[in-house]
Amino acid sequence: MNSKKIGVLGGGQLGRMLVEAASRLNISVTILDSPVNSPAKQIQATSTHVHGDFKDPLKIQELAQNVDVLTIEIEHVDVEILEKLFSKKSVEIHPHPYTIRIIQDKFLQKTHLSQNEIPVVDFIDIPDKESLNIAIEKFSYPIMLKSKLLAYDGRGNYVINSEDEITDALKTLGNFKIPLYVERWTPFVKELAVMVIRSVDGVIKSYPVVETVHKENICHLVIVPAQVDGVILRCAKEIAEKAIQTLKGAGIFGVEMFLMKNGQIYINEIAPRPHNSGHYTIEACETSQYENHIRSILNMPIGSTSLKVPAAAMINVLGKSEDIHETLGPCVEALTTPGATIHLYGKKECRKGRKMGHITVVADSISQLYKRINPILNIDDENDTSTTSSKNIQPLVGIIMGSDSDLPTMKACAEVLKSFDVPFELSIVSAHRTPMRMVEYAKTAHVRGLKAIIAGAGGAAHLPGMVAALTPLLVIGVPVKGKSLDGVDSLYSIVQMPRGVPVATVAINNSTNAGLLAVRHLGAFMPSYLQKMQEFTERQESEVLAKVDKLDQVGWENY
Amino acid sequence: MNSKKIGVLGGGQLGRMLVEAASRLNISVTILDSPVNSPAKQIQATSTHVHGDFKDPLKIQELAQNVDVLTIEIEHVDVEILEKLFSKKSVEIHPHPYTIRIIQDKFLQKTHLSQNEIPVVDFIDIPDKESLNIAIEKFSYPIMLKSKLLAYDGRGNYVINSEDEITDALKTLGNFKIPLYVERWTPFVKELAVMVIRSVDGVIKSYPVVETVHKENICHLVIVPAQVDGVILRCAKEIAEKAIQTLKGAGIFGVEMFLMKNGQIYINEIAPRPHNSGHYTIEACETSQYENHIRSILNMPIGSTSLKVPAAAMINVLGKSEDIHETLGPCVEALTTPGATIHLYGKKECRKGRKMGHITVVADSISQLYKRINPILNIDDENDTSTTSSKNIQPLVGIIMGSDSDLPTMKACAEVLKSFDVPFELSIVSAHRTPMRMVEYAKTAHVRGLKAIIAGAGGAAHLPGMVAALTPLLVIGVPVKGKSLDGVDSLYSIVQMPRGVPVATVAINNSTNAGLLAVRHLGAFMPSYLQKMQEFTERQESEVLAKVDKLDQVGWENY
Repeated sequence: MNSKKIGVLGGGQLGRMLVEAASRLNISVTILDSPVNSPAKQIQATSTHVHGDFKDPLKIQELAQNVDVLTIEIEHVDVEILEKLFSKKSVEIHPHPYTIRIIQDKFLQKTHLSQNEIPVVDFIDIPDKESLNIAIEKFSYPIMLKSKLLAYDGRGNYVINSEDEITDALKTLGNFKIPLYVERWTPFVKELAVMVIRSVDGVIKSYPVVETVHKENICHLVIVPAQVDGVILRCAKEIAEKAIQTLKGAGIFGVEMFLMKNGQIYINEIAPRPHNSGHYTIEACETSQYENHIRSILNMPIGSTSLKVPAAAMINVLGKSEDIHETLGPCVEALTTPGATIHLYGKKECRKGRKMGHITVVADSISQLYKRINPILNIDDENDTSTTSSKNIQPLVGIIMGSDSDLPTMKACAEVLKSFDVPFELSIVSAHRTPMRMVEYAKTAHVRGLKAIIAGAGGAAHLPGMVAALTPLLVIGVPVKGKSLDGVDSLYSIVQMPRGVPVATVAINNSTNAGLLAVRHLGAFMPSYLQKMQEFTERQESEVLAKVDKLDQVGWENY
Repeated sequence: MNSKKIGVLGGGQLGRMLVEAASRLNISVTILDSPVNSPAKQIQATSTHVHGDFKDPLKIQELAQNVDVLTIEIEHVDVEILEKLFSKKSVEIHPHPYTIRIIQDKFLQKTHLSQNEIPVVDFIDIPDKESLNIAIEKFSYPIMLKSKLLAYDGRGNYVINSEDEITDALKTLGNFKIPLYVERWTPFVKELAVMVIRSVDGVIKSYPVVETVHKENICHLVIVPAQVDGVILRCAKEIAEKAIQTLKGAGIFGVEMFLMKNGQIYINEIAPRPHNSGHYTIEACETSQYENHIRSILNMPIGSTSLKVPAAAMINVLGKSEDIHETLGPCVEALTTPGATIHLYGKKECRKGRKMGHITVVADSISQLYKRINPILNIDDENDTSTTSSKNIQPLVGIIMGSDSDLPTMKACAEVLKSFDVPFELSIVSAHRTPMRMVEYAKTAHVRGLKAIIAGAGGAAHLPGMVAALTPLLVIGVPVKGKSLDGVDSLYSIVQMPRGVPVATVAINNSTNAGLLAVRHLGAFMPSYLQKMQEFTERQESEVLAKVDKLDQVGWENY
């Protein structure tokens, strides 16, 4: 496919998964890392790897001599030698060394982003104790003190809550031996992340927006698609792509973001390489982040970044202690979980907090996804609530009605969806009194992730038909019986739609059937709902048959 | 996960993909094969592999001494030594050596299956020329003369069409040096295959039924799900599972079958190992055939065998000549095909017909799948028609009507589905005149792969409601206007369904909207249809806007 040889600085799990992707394309990869048996080297037997530190300029040079393209799986490498090699043009380097330099230094990174009008939280340089006091005065407690360099997975961060903690904070972060800066405290409601791929000629493509849950500053759980409004999804995607547009060189980038209560999104940090929040792409997307990194740095066509399953999760397998068996608890559970794939990284020593592997789970819906991952997460820590805090599932069905007077009729529909475990939303949208709200609701419904809309209305009952005219989704209409004409007015207004704009109409006042129709709609593609619908009809049948028995036993006079 | 060491006899592409699956579970695999750099050895650097022939008893013994479980990726191994090792209990062997012995000898295999009442085509032992004449008399021309041993990918087969060819046939197959037998000629309409997994304690689980297309006796294309009726799918699955139940030992088995015109299914042959027709499971199923083979032989829980995508294809990358670049044509096309994943096996020498790699393509529907694979197949051979011969796509929507007098009304619905490229079927099913046909149709609809039923009826119009009572699928009802009551009779009969059994009703005679409703239904889960529906509504809008322009230009008097 491509005869260029790739050299990777770093041979951990990210390198390992890069090798996996490269092997399938028969692309040669050589690893630079100290352990002879590092995760990436274990699965690549055809290269003579370089054994040494990825910060060692001589070793980097040695690697460069044997390959055509250099890339990284960790950003804490020696940039100076990369810059030298780059200027000599003796080897291609992706991403560009200057990009790595910017990202290595978190203060430089934030400055770069903010100069390019990418939203980041407020930050101030802290060259000395004096400037720390100024920052505290400006931002007030708590503030986040950070090392500019070598900070990851919570290392190099200190949250200062009061004056008492200043001394300890400075001591912990090395008393200015490593340069420091301060960030304004950011009480986010969710963390989002997007993997963005940049081609050699600067074309940008991104993966779906995910939500990430961190535990003790280490990524613990990733859910895709992120359970936030479609408008926020679009916004997060745009910010992430815009940020990567400002950087040089090809490759995959992980963009981590904070979502605030008011919908504001800030970039937290960028990784210039495959990222933990993109592991899920191996099983859940049409092309993995690893393969796309390989493709982009070799100037091959970028593969599709679309999801191929409706929902997926990634759970990190973090060392619980030095005991590997204790650590593998979630994996044992995953072996019996449908849709789960286990990735272990071949690390010889297990340590508390060390990333030993991960588990990807795919599912036909977010509801099924949570059913599948909950047992895996529970084994990890039964009393943990942080991992479920993000469990606000986005609705699959929207129930709307023209007026609150329709609610008694439409309640039955909500109850059906609840009993079938279908996530839904319910609101008032009036065609005649809130026409613009109706337009907004219908136009954005499919973008927000809805799969069907159930609309109830009475009398002139324009709501279902007007909504159907504004959405490509399936619209189910419920004619609500008014004071005159016995509901025939509503029925005709809903069912007699012109050619081109269909409404699936149910019986007058029969919102139960609207709910059941929505379940049948979902069931055609989500096997778990089809199964439930079959159980429901069997239950219905046996209920009637029980009445047959009773009638036979007690006779019609006594029934 | 499991500390047992696996040894694999054979190190080709199947071994390579076994190693890939084992690595992710950190399970040690040692390969026995002659080339130092065989495909499987290339991606496993932590084992000291055995370099030697997988038919060499001494080398097999050497491998056995270093591992806990022996398995195979090719059945043409030395069985005697496996039987000896098995009886000594020095190593576990999966599948059971006796299973390998049965399968190595195609005549023994067919005898075994037929004794176990598994359907196979008629066959006769041919120890000498005399018995060949008897066989020809019995079966008449053409007949299939086969080597009992070492026959695969068309090698060891000879189709004898007339007496003239007998001498050449016998010469080609070695003049009884390798024992021969004859099979009755089988003019199948399709070839099907099922991967079946057997646990150490004999529990059976199978993957979806696929259809395979062979070119010059080598598997060329695999489509899943097989585009045949659901009843045939179920039958193929049962036969395959029953066959594997008769064999001993754990592991994955590939069962190849012939489907005859009358629906009869025969087993053609069984492979006691991962199989070409199961490559697609890596990208398309919840657990791959390779991982499940590893799991089963290590007595770990068997993973889910469900599809995680609606449709998938596998295309073999076969050597076109000694020129690798010519051979890689389909891969170059696949690089720009959404949903395509390329697997190259790292084979150093390219030869005509050699399996150099494969491409898996996933899609949201069979229609989308064919759109995606056609360019890849065309590059392979533009004038080739054999690969598209299987392109009879199973319907997603069923259109039924109570009487042929409803056809003029229902035609519009068929035209909508045709224009949206939705595969559908159309038939007459009458609730009152063919009640049992209706029951059969509705009860099997979801099993046969339908996602919705559109039912048109007039007058008492019971069809849509009765069908809805018998299926868990979405049923769309079209009230057809009769001679009296202006269609109100049909409308009320269809829309006023009791609670519990919903019908999505459209306007009287408006079967266009029924078709559009079905497209919206599919579009919620198949992005390509959502896209088309949006384009349709935009087109509708611009058509009206064009009329606005015209009206403005010519004035209302001249319009």
